[in-house]
Amino acid sequence: MIKVLVLNGPNLNLLGSREPEVYGKGTLDDIEAMVSQRAGEIGVAASFVQSNHEGVLIDALQAANGQFDAVVFNPGAFTHYSYALRDAVVAAGVPVVEVHLSNISAREPFRRESVIAPAAIGQISGFGARSYILGFEAAVDHVKASL
Amino acid sequence: MIKVLVLNGPNLNLLGSREPEVYGKGTLDDIEAMVSQRAGEIGVAASFVQSNHEGVLIDALQAANGQFDAVVFNPGAFTHYSYALRDAVVAAGVPVVEVHLSNISAREPFRRESVIAPAAIGQISGFGARSYILGFEAAVDHVKASL
Amino acid sequence: MIKVLVLNGPNLNLLGSREPEVYGKGTLDDIEAMVSQRAGEIGVAASFVQSNHEGVLIDALQAANGQFDAVVFNPGAFTHYSYALRDAVVAAGVPVVEVHLSNISAREPFRRESVIAPAAIGQISGFGARSYILGFEAAVDHVKASL
Amino acid sequence: MIKVLVLNGPNLNLLGSREPEVYGKGTLDDIEAMVSQRAGEIGVAASFVQSNHEGVLIDALQAANGQFDAVVFNPGAFTHYSYALRDAVVAAGVPVVEVHLSNISAREPFRRESVIAPAAIGQISGFGARSYILGFEAAVDHVKASL
Amino acid sequence: MIKVLVLNGPNLNLLGSREPEVYGKGTLDDIEAMVSQRAGEIGVAASFVQSNHEGVLIDALQAANGQFDAVVFNPGAFTHYSYALRDAVVAAGVPVVEVHLSNISAREPFRRESVIAPAAIGQISGFGARSYILGFEAAVDHVKASL
Amino acid sequence: MIKVLVLNGPNLNLLGSREPEVYGKGTLDDIEAMVSQRAGEIGVAASFVQSNHEGVLIDALQAANGQFDAVVFNPGAFTHYSYALRDAVVAAGVPVVEVHLSNISAREPFRRESVIAPAAIGQISGFGARSYILGFEAAVDHVKASL
Amino acid sequence: MIKVLVLNGPNLNLLGSREPEVYGKGTLDDIEAMVSQRAGEIGVAASFVQSNHEGVLIDALQAANGQFDAVVFNPGAFTHYSYALRDAVVAAGVPVVEVHLSNISAREPFRRESVIAPAAIGQISGFGARSYILGFEAAVDHVKASL
Amino acid sequence: MIKVLVLNGPNLNLLGSREPEVYGKGTLDDIEAMVSQRAGEIGVAASFVQSNHEGVLIDALQAANGQFDAVVFNPGAFTHYSYALRDAVVAAGVPVVEVHLSNISAREPFRRESVIAPAAIGQISGFGARSYILGFEAAVDHVKASL
Amino acid sequence: MIKVLVLNGPNLNLLGSREPEVYGKGTLDDIEAMVSQRAGEIGVAASFVQSNHEGVLIDALQAANGQFDAVVFNPGAFTHYSYALRDAVVAAGVPVVEVHLSNISAREPFRRESVIAPAAIGQISGFGARSYILGFEAAVDHVKASL
Amino acid sequence: MIKVLVLNGPNLNLLGSREPEVYGKGTLDDIEAMVSQRAGEIGVAASFVQSNHEGVLIDALQAANGQFDAVVFNPGAFTHYSYALRDAVVAAGVPVVEVHLSNISAREPFRRESVIAPAAIGQISGFGARSYILGFEAAVDHVKASL
Amino acid sequence: MIKVLVLNGPNLNLLGSREPEVYGKGTLDDIEAMVSQRAGEIGVAASFVQSNHEGVLIDALQAANGQFDAVVFNPGAFTHYSYALRDAVVAAGVPVVEVHLSNISAREPFRRESVIAPAAIGQISGFGARSYILGFEAAVDHVKASL
Amino acid sequence: MIKVLVLNGPNLNLLGSREPEVYGKGTLDDIEAMVSQRAGEIGVAASFVQSNHEGVLIDALQAANGQFDAVVFNPGAFTHYSYALRDAVVAAGVPVVEVHLSNISAREPFRRESVIAPAAIGQISGFGARSYILGFEAAVDHVKASL
Repeated sequence: MIKVLVLNGPNLNLLGSREPEVYGKGTLDDIEAMVSQRAGEIGVAASFVQSNHEGVLIDALQAANGQFDAVVFNPGAFTHYSYALRDAVVAAGVPVVEVHLSNISAREPFRRESVIAPAAIGQISGFGARSYILGFEAAVDHVKASL
Repeated sequence: MIKVLVLNGPNLNLLGSREPEVYGKGTLDDIEAMVSQRAGEIGVAASFVQSNHEGVLIDALQAANGQFDAVVFNPGAFTHYSYALRDAVVAAGVPVVEVHLSNISAREPFRRESVIAPAAIGQISGFGARSYILGFEAAVDHVKASL
Repeated sequence: MIKVLVLNGPNLNLLGSREPEVYGKGTLDDIEAMVSQRAGEIGVAASFVQSNHEGVLIDALQAANGQFDAVVFNPGAFTHYSYALRDAVVAAGVPVVEVHLSNISAREPFRRESVIAPAAIGQISGFGARSYILGFEAAVDHVKASL
Repeated sequence: MIKVLVLNGPNLNLLGSREPEVYGKGTLDDIEAMVSQRAGEIGVAASFVQSNHEGVLIDALQAANGQFDAVVFNPGAFTHYSYALRDAVVAAGVPVVEVHLSNISAREPFRRESVIAPAAIGQISGFGARSYILGFEAAVDHVKASL
Repeated sequence: MIKVLVLNGPNLNLLGSREPEVYGKGTLDDIEAMVSQRAGEIGVAASFVQSNHEGVLIDALQAANGQFDAVVFNPGAFTHYSYALRDAVVAAGVPVVEVHLSNISAREPFRRESVIAPAAIGQISGFGARSYILGFEAAVDHVKASL
Repeated sequence: MIKVLVLNGPNLNLLGSREPEVYGKGTLDDIEAMVSQRAGEIGVAASFVQSNHEGVLIDALQAANGQFDAVVFNPGAFTHYSYALRDAVVAAGVPVVEVHLSNISAREPFRRESVIAPAAIGQISGFGARSYILGFEAAVDHVKASL
Repeated sequence: MIKVLVLNGPNLNLLGSREPEVYGKGTLDDIEAMVSQRAGEIGVAASFVQSNHEGVLIDALQAANGQFDAVVFNPGAFTHYSYALRDAVVAAGVPVVEVHLSNISAREPFRRESVIAPAAIGQISGFGARSYILGFEAAVDHVKASL
Repeated sequence: MIKVLVLNGPNLNLLGSREPEVYGKGTLDDIEAMVSQRAGEIGVAASFVQSNHEGVLIDALQAANGQFDAVVFNPGAFTHYSYALRDAVVAAGVPVVEVHLSNISAREPFRRESVIAPAAIGQISGFGARSYILGFEAAVDHVKASL
Repeated sequence: MIKVLVLNGPNLNLLGSREPEVYGKGTLDDIEAMVSQRAGEIGVAASFVQSNHEGVLIDALQAANGQFDAVVFNPGAFTHYSYALRDAVVAAGVPVVEVHLSNISAREPFRRESVIAPAAIGQISGFGARSYILGFEAAVDHVKASL
Repeated sequence: MIKVLVLNGPNLNLLGSREPEVYGKGTLDDIEAMVSQRAGEIGVAASFVQSNHEGVLIDALQAANGQFDAVVFNPGAFTHYSYALRDAVVAAGVPVVEVHLSNISAREPFRRESVIAPAAIGQISGFGARSYILGFEAAVDHVKASL
Repeated sequence: MIKVLVLNGPNLNLLGSREPEVYGKGTLDDIEAMVSQRAGEIGVAASFVQSNHEGVLIDALQAANGQFDAVVFNPGAFTHYSYALRDAVVAAGVPVVEVHLSNISAREPFRRESVIAPAAIGQISGFGARSYILGFEAAVDHVKASL
Repeated sequence: MIKVLVLNGPNLNLLGSREPEVYGKGTLDDIEAMVSQRAGEIGVAASFVQSNHEGVLIDALQAANGQFDAVVFNPGAFTHYSYALRDAVVAAGVPVVEVHLSNISAREPFRRESVIAPAAIGQISGFGARSYILGFEAAVDHVKASL
């Protein structure tokens, strides 16, 4: 069975209460439930990790090797400066799909560049919670195409 | 019935023969067939336009208003400098999803920025032909959520 | 009789419905009617062309030589990147007045620079439809002063 | 009766003798006479202030509130660095039209940006003394449209 | 018989009358005649296309594949911003030699960079109409060396 | 009773021994004692957290919501690159006052910009340990004014 | 008795009516009254100067030497370009505390840098009229600590 | 008799007490006495003006036309941003020699560029009070060479 | 006996499997064994810490004071943005030698600058595992020279 | 008889062994033989100088005045920083054609700009050894056209 | 026997008297003696060249091919702009280790980048004369590993 | 007797014939004669060196130590990039006055910055041959003041 890790970075645990006009009213639990349901429908196992600690996210990416077939990753604000996470994505040897709730191209200048995306397979941004479903499907398809 | 226009910009008519190590071996016909099949499965009408002419793409976006519920748009190299297409996306009053075959974040510096994306709902890049399917589904979901 | 061409670039055909909070509620027809009326009052012939195609605008500027005494030109988004239009203004050998509905100095950074203006006589921006009347009068005065 | 202040910044008192190949041979008196005549024709009162002192110009803009319905302002070289004048334009609460004799887009790089224009209604540049007449009419029209 | 397309971009149809102090007094017809004569001398077929439309130039480059052995291309002002033409050069799969009449290194800053040149075999600039002859010979030699 | 958290970032635990010519000879204990005393004088409860771990600081800011009425925050070197802390300040929904011992405007270029300050109420820098007292009073006043 | 000069730059005389959503509804008189009251409470003499003229502010800073023990200075828009005021702060030989009503880190890019702050003791911004009280206390404490 | 104006900008009235390690211990009176003595030796009339007000300096440069044969000008910190003074130097029609006490090339980045120097005959910096004598002689020689 | 800490940052625990074409096939254990052997040969005590957590590395540098005579530090990707580690190096009061396996000058632009190196004694890069031996010897020599 | 100097800069003496995948397998002797043969065919005298010393190249350019009618110059890496060679080209008063073996527009960023080209007649790059033949012919044509 | 060239660039012949607070009191003779002694200890032949002439250094690097197994190179100030030396390092086909006495990361901005280092094996900076010993050992190890 | 070296860099040997509209019609011999005469008048010994070779200039600066009391140096185009000459000026331990014939502030952007000036006492530019006389006197005065 294909196993996918859904990994969330800093402040995403506050979804629903944090700037709902930008990020929507759904909580991270809501998103994880949506992904779990979709995973069930297509027979894929989904796991979830969220952390505000860059080191914990690096550890999780490293540990994903062998444990998971792919990672759906929303690095939060680390997107814009964590070269350590970029290196971890490369070092992990696990395909990573980067997702964002908001359309980062339409936000403040510092949010428009992702230093992590060059190490990912691809990037999906702007579709709210739906970004996770699209990213999850993209990851699963990628794994299937590599089998 | 929801109607979606799949709009392709310059040089995408050469897919399959153009730099296949970057863009894959599938032709634009293959992609359009994939999208058509998916459209059929979910009961949505899909139309297709490709042009190497910036003005034709602007006309198509303007004409989409009233004719289509959403547009899936790969602007090709216009992505990086056509502010006229950006204005057309805003002026068209039709939701647009921007898609790219390759992961533009991992390519030459000039390809990393999209001047059109700020006017789109969101952006999907890096998943090859699958970017179109993901973008098509994202567009349809967006339309459904707006009904 | 002095003859003036009023030339409009991409997306200006959608005036009235396109971002009315920025560009006003008047349509391009309204603007052209205003200019025609003013032209009649001062005994000048006014012609009108609009296109979303950069090449058509270049052709129109080239053809203006001999046909028109001056051009009032709103290049739309081409203002910010079309060096080909700038060359066409120089090559046309016809005096050009650049006009803009909105105050481009107060908008997004990319809209603040005009690559065409250095080839024009002058620039008028920020007065809505009135920018065209002012630009028309400026063009006519320039022609008269050159006689 | 509509009252308009025509405000001129540093070195504009030397018009006529200062770089006539750039600024023309007309003196500031000539320009003010032209504006006065036009004001008389359309039944508007025109007043004139020129100063080489940034502080005097700020005071004049502040004092314009209540005294004048609009200001036609050529800030001279202050155009390019006086954020204090920009703030004064905003604080004055009086509509300001920025005018320039020469086409600043076609001159040295430092002259191409106006730090004041974002606070103005609009900008007119490149038509020599005629820029003042156009600016004056634009200011009067703006006032009439706001009544 | 080797076949070479000589392709010219915007405003080059006005050669002779357009800024003769920069581009010389020869017309495009003169240049094409010079190239035709040289082609005849060395037994090569030369064809000619000029357009002010970016899309037409892209179409021409795409169509050159199979029809021509090489292209001599003066992209005019598109040189400096048309990433779509750069992609077309790569996608066309036909060797392209970029030529310019004037020495673009000695002109305005925006004219010094060619976004198309990285996709060409090489670049020749500064020799007036002779740039076309040199470029034509370089293209023919390149084709011969590849046989 | 108003409750204020005084939060300190990396290396501030070494105050007193770390570059005393820049940061002074007082230790973090000294500063916390000064703040505690002032808190007692004005009947406010003060709590203190210091960490070298960005994730711990994010957790603390998130946990402050509901527990504290305001936060006085010296982010140390995170000031200059931690967009995750900026997001945490916004997400926390608790007013934050940014303080610095030294005058960061007078130090190395990279220390002059704070990526966190745009999310804070205000910033106080340059007054040594006194910056904390001023920041504490500013935070308390802000809370009182919001009641 | 400690004597402190409160010095205000251009357009601050319009506080209360000028962009109240940014600067608050209090007038400069209100702020000066607040500072006077606080000065009385702690037995310090407060004087006040406001000018829209850069030269007058330079003169005031120079004259402060010998007359005042410290200066609380809001340079208004001069903050961002008046190197002459920066030199005056250094040359004056009187400690200066820079204050701002709004949080300049959260405003337009040009307002984020202070060219004067490197010459000041420290900077306080974002607390509205309260910035003056905090700055006044910081100045007095600085004087006391230097006795 | 040749007449030369020695014009000094902001904060130069404080020479001697202001940062003597940078500017030396001599006062402006000392420098003016040195220049007067040298003027007497070579039979030239020297006059002196110093002001902290940009507008006063502009007025002085304008008034110099007809009154003086040349100006030796130390613009102080205005050197680095006063485009109005640059324009005044051009408009004044009097040759200007720019002088500086310190070697501005070896100081803070913002002090290395002079926006006024392009309008001057030449620039002398780094020789302390001697810069004025050298500048005075250069100005006199320039006048003599132009007779 | 001299004691040296060898400190490794994020993702260095994956050496051997992570991009071996860049970093070599040796594991971190191999490197530590090499250093240990060399330490034994020259009678120096070597200790080893690796962490993916920035905070843990800061803690380790702070704790090194008193415990170790020098630190050999490979900050991994933190090299390029962790100003907090730079501050920790300064605050730690222990000499630090920065080492890198690859020649960072020859890699992606973002890897060419080290924000930590200005706080180190020196930097050694490009010699693979040998960089650690060279760095270890450099650190030991530095300590001996300081005794 | 027309005389042309073929001048080569640093490291071009190593052609053939130096990075043959970039510069080809031909040696400088091969290139010089090719040029000599072509010179013989068209009745022009060709001379050759190569040096790794910037000063020797400057001397050679200066000495070319009077001795040669034109220079074909490959400045090697000096292309990118030797303003002294640029001045020498201008000062030499001999027409210079700049040539490069590789297409410098397609290489590292620092190789894309030539500081010498603005002083040359034109530039030819990307055609391998053939660049010299093309440059030689361009130089001869230029001389003939100037007779 | 392994042979290593120690190559020194401009002004390094003045070591000992040149800015001893930056470069130490040792002369170049002292350094060469240290390296000779170390070479003797490990049975390697060391040769020494110093020149202030860029061309001589290029010649020496070219000549090193065949004569030496490796080069230890301190390019002095050429480090920061000599692309000709960078090309020479590549063209020489001999491994080069770049060394610096001072920690160039901690000096003036222009000294922080090495344009030569990308062509070297690695770089060692900041250890004074010891940098040469470390570089010498690194070079020897590199040669041994390549045998 | 005070001894001064007048040192000239590349292309200055061509003065008189090289761009006389920029550099004047006088030859270097003329300038040296003028300086010699002035040296005789004030009892100072003047020597002269000119070279197009950067290394020769470095050698001359180094040799000046002990032989000369000061150097008047026009580095020609090396002014703008030769960090090796800047280091030589510092290392030489002889005071250097930088001179330029033309006003470098009013020329092309690359000529406006001197990388050598920060190491000189001061800089004089724009007075033609007179710059050398002024520089010579400045150098002599500096030596006298240091006795």
